[in-house]
Formats: sequence, structure tokens, C-alpha cells
Amino acid sequence: MKLLKDKIVQDGKVLSDQVLKVDSFLNHQIDPPLMQAIGEEFAERFKDAGITKILTLESSGIAPSMMAGLILGVPVIFARKRKSLTLIDHLYTASVHSFTKNETNDISVSKDFVTSEDTVLLIDDFLANGQAVLGLLDIIEQAGAKLAGVGIVIEKGFQPGGALIREQDIRVESLANIASLENGQVTFFEGALSK
Amino acid sequence: MKLLKDKIVQDGKVLSDQVLKVDSFLNHQIDPPLMQAIGEEFAERFKDAGITKILTLESSGIAPSMMAGLILGVPVIFARKRKSLTLIDHLYTASVHSFTKNETNDISVSKDFVTSEDTVLLIDDFLANGQAVLGLLDIIEQAGAKLAGVGIVIEKGFQPGGALIREQDIRVESLANIASLENGQVTFFEGALSK
Repeated sequence: MKLLKDKIVQDGKVLSDQVLKVDSFLNHQIDPPLMQAIGEEFAERFKDAGITKILTLESSGIAPSMMAGLILGVPVIFARKRKSLTLIDHLYTASVHSFTKNETNDISVSKDFVTSEDTVLLIDDFLANGQAVLGLLDIIEQAGAKLAGVGIVIEKGFQPGGALIREQDIRVESLANIASLENGQVTFFEGALSK
Repeated sequence: MKLLKDKIVQDGKVLSDQVLKVDSFLNHQIDPPLMQAIGEEFAERFKDAGITKILTLESSGIAPSMMAGLILGVPVIFARKRKSLTLIDHLYTASVHSFTKNETNDISVSKDFVTSEDTVLLIDDFLANGQAVLGLLDIIEQAGAKLAGVGIVIEKGFQPGGALIREQDIRVESLANIASLENGQVTFFEGALSK
């Protein structure tokens, strides 16, 4: 997605070979017209997948998911993150380890909102080690829902998450797939994975 | 805002005289067309206020703020919540006490995104005791930014937050203002505060 890649090159900050900061338009400040374009792109790619719900994770997944949900005409559920869950009544839960923060959080979704009747599109802002997506997939499986696929705003394709998910025969659509952050430069994978 | 009040009556769950749960369309599952209507209503009410930025708090404030930002043509910033902040470099921070959860969180906003040049519309999902709004107001003051006003999706008008903010001569626009949750019934204030 050219608009997004241009934005990453223009406003993203490469902090190291591993870390790209996109606080100015996605993770802290949000650029609404860009979120609208991202929502349209997800909706276009998944329009024939029979989606009934979008599932994402607070907080940075909410804005792009909301726009995709508006266009696809389906509700959005954001999984909640908590250090540890005391009240797990009527919740699907999964553990998600963050390598960046070196901490494990529980994520949870109410059993009211994802059921075996649903076909779910999973959306997240970043795909790096894949732990958040694996946690959300776990919840979809617990609910007995059907998975339509995974929509990612920015994939760090040089980290193992994408391969980990795709080798389970899951459709992953990344709107920008980064090949490298070396020498302070953002390089994208070209071709099918990152059109 | 009739659409919102109807939704609260239809899908909100009154858990006690103090607690209204709106997890099915605002706080966990999100109803995108309703968020769009809410965004339009905030944009209409504040269209002449010269707004340059919308400031909200993760996570439930993000969806309505994003829609308002899209219509007003301004970026949205969501303040981050953390148990305690270790890295406070280049951040405005404030403490917010939650009476519901009986815990205090730090909230933070990067100094990059709110400046003395900005006229800020503050949006939040709920106004009850007013602590979150007071924390965000503190950050706007630290930044030397101008405050246009406060937009609230659901005000619990029988709790003290609204009065606390309005007595500082701050414009507060609540799209639904609840007078009472007694006997499992939602009753709204009518008139100017909750048109």
C-alpha cells in the first residue's frame, strides 16, 4: 500500500535495526485519513471472506479496525490487555509475551461477542514476533469461530512472526512489509506479500 | 443525541445504581456506524472552535475520537495509561485515580504532539468522577495549549465529574447525560446538557 509506505518512510523513526517508531501516525498520534485508507484496503482485500466480526487488540489496533469495520459493515471487538486476570468469568483468555517489553500479559475477550457463528478477521497494527496474533488466534479457536485471515498494518518481515502464522496456512495480508531497518533505512519487501 | 440514548436503553446493562455497562457497543465491542454518528455530532458541536488536535485516553476513547478527527480534519492523540512511568523523558504526565478500580495510573502524552500552538478538543467515553478528564486537562495546561472544550459520549450526571469540570468555566458537551440508574432503569437529563 503505497500511501502507507510513503508515510512510514517520511514520518517513521528508525531507532535501531529492530525498532521502527510510528508514534506520529499510528501508535500515539493517529492520522485519521490514513486510517480510513487502511480500513478501505483491508475491506477490499477481505470483502469476499464472509466476515462477521473484526477482532483486534487495544490500543493501536482500534483505529484501523474501526475503519475496516465501518466499510465492511461489521462490529469490532478489541481484546483487553491485563497484567493478570482475576475475573475470568465469561471470558476467553490467552497469554501474550512481549519480547520488546519483556513481559507477559493476559488478553481477554467476552464470550458474548465472538461465537461459533462468527467468521473473524483479525487486525493488528504490527506483526513482529507474532505473539499477539497467536494469542488472538487462540481466542478465536476457543470460541469455535472461523478465521477469515489476518490483516496487519506494518509487518516486520525480518522477524519470525509472519512465517510462524503463514506456515499454519493462515492468510496474512500486510499493508507494508519491512525487509530491513539496517543503516537507519526502511526497505520493504516487494511483491505479493506487501503490494 | 437520540440514536445514542436509544442504544443505551436497548443494549446497555444496568449493573447497579452506579454502574452502566456498554460493552456491546463502546467499551469492548464497538459499533462502527454509531461511532461515526458520534463523531459527526462532536464535529458539529465543535466545528467553530478552531480545533487543531483531539486528545483522548486509551482505549475506549479512540474510536469516537477517530471519527470526530476524520470529520474535523485534525489528528487524534491518545494518552497512554501506565501503572507507573519509568521513562518520562519528553512526556507530559499526570496521575489519574480510578474510583471504580481503586487504583492510580499515570497517563502520558509525548511533547511532540501537543504544543502551545494547539487548540485541543478533549474527548472521552465516560464522565463520572471526572478524574480522567482532570488528568487530560492537566496535560493540556502543561503543554500550554488552548482548550476548546470537552466532548463526552456518556456522562453519569448523578456523579460529581461534570460539575467539577463545568465550574472551571470549561465547555462540556455530553451526548447522553444520565440522571439516574435506579431500579435498573436508565433515566436521562433532558435539555441543553444532553440534547
